[in-house]
Amino acid sequence: MLPPILTENAMEKFAAQDPDFEAKVRASFARQGLMTNLGAKMVQVTPGEVVLELPYRDDITQQQSFVHGAAVAAIVDTACGYSALSLLPAGFDVVTVEYKVNFVAPAVGEKMIARGRVTKAGRTLTVCSGDCYAVRDGREKLIATLQATMMAVQS
Amino acid sequence: MLPPILTENAMEKFAAQDPDFEAKVRASFARQGLMTNLGAKMVQVTPGEVVLELPYRDDITQQQSFVHGAAVAAIVDTACGYSALSLLPAGFDVVTVEYKVNFVAPAVGEKMIARGRVTKAGRTLTVCSGDCYAVRDGREKLIATLQATMMAVQS
Amino acid sequence: MLPPILTENAMEKFAAQDPDFEAKVRASFARQGLMTNLGAKMVQVTPGEVVLELPYRDDITQQQSFVHGAAVAAIVDTACGYSALSLLPAGFDVVTVEYKVNFVAPAVGEKMIARGRVTKAGRTLTVCSGDCYAVRDGREKLIATLQATMMAVQS
Amino acid sequence: MLPPILTENAMEKFAAQDPDFEAKVRASFARQGLMTNLGAKMVQVTPGEVVLELPYRDDITQQQSFVHGAAVAAIVDTACGYSALSLLPAGFDVVTVEYKVNFVAPAVGEKMIARGRVTKAGRTLTVCSGDCYAVRDGREKLIATLQATMMAVQS
Repeated sequence: MLPPILTENAMEKFAAQDPDFEAKVRASFARQGLMTNLGAKMVQVTPGEVVLELPYRDDITQQQSFVHGAAVAAIVDTACGYSALSLLPAGFDVVTVEYKVNFVAPAVGEKMIARGRVTKAGRTLTVCSGDCYAVRDGREKLIATLQATMMAVQS
Repeated sequence: MLPPILTENAMEKFAAQDPDFEAKVRASFARQGLMTNLGAKMVQVTPGEVVLELPYRDDITQQQSFVHGAAVAAIVDTACGYSALSLLPAGFDVVTVEYKVNFVAPAVGEKMIARGRVTKAGRTLTVCSGDCYAVRDGREKLIATLQATMMAVQS
Repeated sequence: MLPPILTENAMEKFAAQDPDFEAKVRASFARQGLMTNLGAKMVQVTPGEVVLELPYRDDITQQQSFVHGAAVAAIVDTACGYSALSLLPAGFDVVTVEYKVNFVAPAVGEKMIARGRVTKAGRTLTVCSGDCYAVRDGREKLIATLQATMMAVQS
Repeated sequence: MLPPILTENAMEKFAAQDPDFEAKVRASFARQGLMTNLGAKMVQVTPGEVVLELPYRDDITQQQSFVHGAAVAAIVDTACGYSALSLLPAGFDVVTVEYKVNFVAPAVGEKMIARGRVTKAGRTLTVCSGDCYAVRDGREKLIATLQATMMAVQS
């Protein structure tokens, strides 16, 4: 078992500045036409971390009938973006500046779970990391890992 | 006007190894449930370069009713992947190892055009770059730029 | 021969806002201890594009005596950063938010040439792309390609 | 305190295939001219994880006298590469296919510590993640986070 890469004194502790952060995050997510289209659900919102799920469907696949990498990246990027938004004051929205994603295993399973969380919260820019797991017969397997930069914009 | 960043002697010239590359690419694209779902169309396939289009629709949007970055990344990644596949011998398929995408302007327009092309073709790995433009009132505006690594796998 | 990926009406034209941009860029570069250490030289500064060179030396190598990828990335990132700085008003400096680099061939040659240029100039963030070529017997070969996000900060 | 993003059943456990992995890794590191030049030291090698240190020096700085981002990226990329090599069988070397790095705070401190570790080990490709901390007055602060793809090559 490897020691944790983040030592205790280096680990960021996060607190929400907006007491209504969860309602704000969920309302914004509900307005995303693409997330509704894909069938993604928001399953958890805590300060600095958001979890989404995406059940398997035929219309989110690539040519080999696995879940398309773009659908996987979509939910991890979205989880990361909302993890950043969860820490911003009221009156701000968040946009994705950029992200990088590695696909490490085929997306095969009943559903995909994306966890996004804040690595470093800043006033203008927030850096996030996220992972996606395929759930098959109740076991999670890592299928993608993503690193993103988010920017706060006045809403 | 800047000089081209690729000098003549450094520019790769690409030739297809599979005479049926275009049919193979188009058939694979047609099997992608997600591309059908999003409404993406393949408009051009040449050796080392593929162009896709994505008309605006309400169900591919983010919270501000722009086209979702994930849909933008989806078509640029897919264009890049097929630009790599267009150069591979018969009997091979391609998977995305990883990509990185910057979103440089809101995706606002009647349609999005994604151009993916091969930067460096290798036996195992192919490096691609791609861009996405929003077309609004007939004018193209750069909205995203992407750099990807593709891997050849036996099909 | 592939058509250019940037169509004419989408290509950005850049103009410097600070008439002293070249002197500012060269003075900042001269203060970088690491660039002096590695032996990098700034060979061209135009608005939105900067070119650096790095002659081969034994103390910038990796385990196989090629130039180390970190030295390659260093000059491309630096060329990109200064291409962004060349477009900023007086009173601003630039920091690298993030970059992504692909190494596409071994760094073998008498010298490395890095070209960085601005893809999209913004008020806060500037997106750049850069390439590195190894020069061997007078011929340039692409060895790395990089995509970066720079941020303007008051100096 | 956030829950760990990697759940227990998804966390990879790594074992070395080459009993001489540590000697191989340390010998390869010692041949890197650039690492000697920068003053980097290898402080820990375990299966799937490598730690490097880089003491502050004037000749590894950028224009504001902080440690140059390129030196930071150099040690994190190198730590990641050797974390991948530590898991490969005898007779293999590793090359960096690509990496992406975010710089999240200025590199200010007596020394920098880079930790690289394997996220997903594969036969051909290994995906790694790494972080760099600045140590100042005995406290570690996260300054950079990196995600990389490594490729095994026969040596």
